[in-house]
Amino acid sequence: MTISAIDICRLLNGEIEGNPDVIISKAGKIEYAEPGDITFISNPLYEKYFITTKADAVIVSKDFKNTRNDITLIRVTDPYTAFITVLEKLEPVKEIEMFSISDKCVIGKNVEINGDVFIGDFVRIGNGAGIGTGTRIMHNCTIGNKVKIGSNCLIYSNVAIYDDCKLGNNIIIHSGTVIGSDGFGFLKQENGSFKKIPQTGIVVIEDEVEIGSNTSIDRATIGETRICRGAKLDNQVQIAHNVEIGEDTVVVAQVGIAGSTKIGKRCMIAGQAGIVGHLTICDDVIIGASVGVSKSITKPGVYVGYRAKPMREELKETALIKEISNLKDRIKELEKSKS
Amino acid sequence: MTISAIDICRLLNGEIEGNPDVIISKAGKIEYAEPGDITFISNPLYEKYFITTKADAVIVSKDFKNTRNDITLIRVTDPYTAFITVLEKLEPVKEIEMFSISDKCVIGKNVEINGDVFIGDFVRIGNGAGIGTGTRIMHNCTIGNKVKIGSNCLIYSNVAIYDDCKLGNNIIIHSGTVIGSDGFGFLKQENGSFKKIPQTGIVVIEDEVEIGSNTSIDRATIGETRICRGAKLDNQVQIAHNVEIGEDTVVVAQVGIAGSTKIGKRCMIAGQAGIVGHLTICDDVIIGASVGVSKSITKPGVYVGYRAKPMREELKETALIKEISNLKDRIKELEKSKS
Amino acid sequence: MTISAIDICRLLNGEIEGNPDVIISKAGKIEYAEPGDITFISNPLYEKYFITTKADAVIVSKDFKNTRNDITLIRVTDPYTAFITVLEKLEPVKEIEMFSISDKCVIGKNVEINGDVFIGDFVRIGNGAGIGTGTRIMHNCTIGNKVKIGSNCLIYSNVAIYDDCKLGNNIIIHSGTVIGSDGFGFLKQENGSFKKIPQTGIVVIEDEVEIGSNTSIDRATIGETRICRGAKLDNQVQIAHNVEIGEDTVVVAQVGIAGSTKIGKRCMIAGQAGIVGHLTICDDVIIGASVGVSKSITKPGVYVGYRAKPMREELKETALIKEISNLKDRIKELEKSKS
Repeated sequence: MTISAIDICRLLNGEIEGNPDVIISKAGKIEYAEPGDITFISNPLYEKYFITTKADAVIVSKDFKNTRNDITLIRVTDPYTAFITVLEKLEPVKEIEMFSISDKCVIGKNVEINGDVFIGDFVRIGNGAGIGTGTRIMHNCTIGNKVKIGSNCLIYSNVAIYDDCKLGNNIIIHSGTVIGSDGFGFLKQENGSFKKIPQTGIVVIEDEVEIGSNTSIDRATIGETRICRGAKLDNQVQIAHNVEIGEDTVVVAQVGIAGSTKIGKRCMIAGQAGIVGHLTICDDVIIGASVGVSKSITKPGVYVGYRAKPMREELKETALIKEISNLKDRIKELEKSKS
Repeated sequence: MTISAIDICRLLNGEIEGNPDVIISKAGKIEYAEPGDITFISNPLYEKYFITTKADAVIVSKDFKNTRNDITLIRVTDPYTAFITVLEKLEPVKEIEMFSISDKCVIGKNVEINGDVFIGDFVRIGNGAGIGTGTRIMHNCTIGNKVKIGSNCLIYSNVAIYDDCKLGNNIIIHSGTVIGSDGFGFLKQENGSFKKIPQTGIVVIEDEVEIGSNTSIDRATIGETRICRGAKLDNQVQIAHNVEIGEDTVVVAQVGIAGSTKIGKRCMIAGQAGIVGHLTICDDVIIGASVGVSKSITKPGVYVGYRAKPMREELKETALIKEISNLKDRIKELEKSKS
Repeated sequence: MTISAIDICRLLNGEIEGNPDVIISKAGKIEYAEPGDITFISNPLYEKYFITTKADAVIVSKDFKNTRNDITLIRVTDPYTAFITVLEKLEPVKEIEMFSISDKCVIGKNVEINGDVFIGDFVRIGNGAGIGTGTRIMHNCTIGNKVKIGSNCLIYSNVAIYDDCKLGNNIIIHSGTVIGSDGFGFLKQENGSFKKIPQTGIVVIEDEVEIGSNTSIDRATIGETRICRGAKLDNQVQIAHNVEIGEDTVVVAQVGIAGSTKIGKRCMIAGQAGIVGHLTICDDVIIGASVGVSKSITKPGVYVGYRAKPMREELKETALIKEISNLKDRIKELEKSKS
């Protein structure tokens, strides 16, 4: 579809500057945009591309300084949110599979299918499972016995969900993700070997959760591992047995959360962070990228760890720390001589 | 099934306190337990839940201080191990697939199947493979040519095992795991591009090994990548070419071990730790969560790295380190003035 | 095949020492080699095995000190490269699947297949896809609608490629990898919940790229996520939306690269490193294992982070840092008393 800049401006309730009649056909990133594109500037890091962008229109903040007269600006309060609105308007319609059940899938006994669903090729659904209306299970997925999946879910291809797990409504799960594998629990024997602890619990995923690709969520040893309403998990996240992720909490890629730890609501765990087992993280905590958390957190706030540095600085710092001991001795000497 | 508290007590060789006749029907976590549940206290972190738990019976240590008279206690030497024993007794019988070979799988030429096995839907088994008695290969797995799998193994759905790899007996592999992908080996060419080094080796997995979901174990460049008897690998572990993991060693989630490194017996590598290539880690080493290991370790013991802190502390610490240099100068000045 | 030591020496343009007629049948690692094997010493770490290796021939550097007279040496300028040449010569011929299209796969409408290809069992190829000559798509893969794959690619089993992604020629993708899953983008709503941002872009993978197992590459929010010509990605790598990986850049296992970050050419990102979003890393940068990068890098060079230490050292260091503040006060006191 195409839309004029002035129509976009009206949609966004913004102010226009420059040619209102320029025709926009798609959204682009500022550094790669082409004629006919609309783009935006929200993060100041991207302001440097303004002078060279080939976009015909740019969504900017109210106080953005315009240095060009050959481009149309749309001024709004929040350029990022406004751009998403435009993106939704312009998004090419994806080829959506019609509701249907492949004749190349296998559906077990006593499976309850409510209303229209999509079940793809080579999908295997176990006995006693249930699938709600509007749900799509793409190709090559394996859904265990007695798994319950609510309505309007989208399970991408090559996902594995183990027996007995329960999923709510409006859930998205990306390819390669595994839900309900055994918790990592072993009992050390006297001879040093390990005996497997039965993992008798399940995984519960509440409504509106989205889970990225190649993520692992283990079933509980007893009871439930639970991902609460609205939580968003990125790719390659590791959720151990009996973990609970609070409502609207965001867990970024490659985070690992060890067994029985409970994360509160509205937390943000940045990429590659690790949280050890049996902790409680309260609501509204932000944990920085790559941070290791080894104690419970009871106060909302931002928690961070280490940062990269050029090798020379790192070596210098290490050497400095080693000197403290020597400095201490010298101070003691000076203090003695003074008295 | 149900069982009385006194019968559980006898099973555990424990001492009972409170009503011996209360009927237990399942095991529960102390904070979520319901009437009819048995639970336990081993980690002191969970003692705080004792006063409010709805469980009817609690397994506790010999010296646990009882503050309630409406609950049955079973006192034992090791409450955790005792609880696992109860768990095994009470565990709901899982729906186990009867031995059978799906008519929706593809089995290559000259595959040797010994005795009763389960082969699920859409499983693909290559030419010349061998599968031992009692082994189950769940749906959507791909097993390469000449792969040998021993007896009583359980390969969950959507696992891929490359050609020529060898698995022993009593092995469990969870969904999404990949065994035998090429080692990451390239030779830099004069023009800066890379030429692939042939990866001609295999992966050998010995008896009693368990491997979590979405783990990767690369084949050797030459020879073998080997996971020794009784080792336990968690989810999302990365094992590079020619690595050897010793007997009864435990590797927790998201650990990465680079090429040709050898880990000894009975080691414990905690979550997200990383070990660089060509190292030797001796027996009985514990490596802390998120620790980076860049040198061989020749003495048993505990090795740790960094810990998370509140952002203010981190900034303060960074500033302090920067001051050492200045302090050094001032001490020198003082020493000079003294002499 | 078998080959004499002198013939290998001629192949490598080297100098022989010892019996030139010994017959070599395979390549082995120095510590595990058997009679009939050829091995090599390049990394000095492995020199200690020279005295005990059972190999019949060893490729060594020009100045390697020979301490045995019962073994054949082949002296060359670069033993590692020479060994790879021998490996290619000796590599057992793998059982390669003949070009064919399984009658157990599903191919959508209007799929363009050019020339000879291999399409395995239970592969699902979407409508409008295209597959070039010489390409092999192994079992249980799911290829989305309109995906274009060039010629001579090798897609191992259980790979998922989402709609519209574009792959060049001579690409290798290992099992469990997911290409084109949605970028992790959400807009916070006033009530604290998150709204999904449409992910309308694609993933482009250029020629000669190799990607390991269980890696995730997200599609762009708008435009492209791009892996440039000759880049090599290891296992369990996380590439977020709109990332660009430069030509001939190597990304080792478990690295995570956040959204919109651009990595230059010929970089080396070592295992478990993490790079935050919206950064630019210039050409020829080496980032150490487990390093967190939070700022753009504009100068080629080596960037490193923390290292593991024995727990006692770590505790001592932490205590020392805490003392700096106290030392500062004492110096101030001394300075005051001096004046």
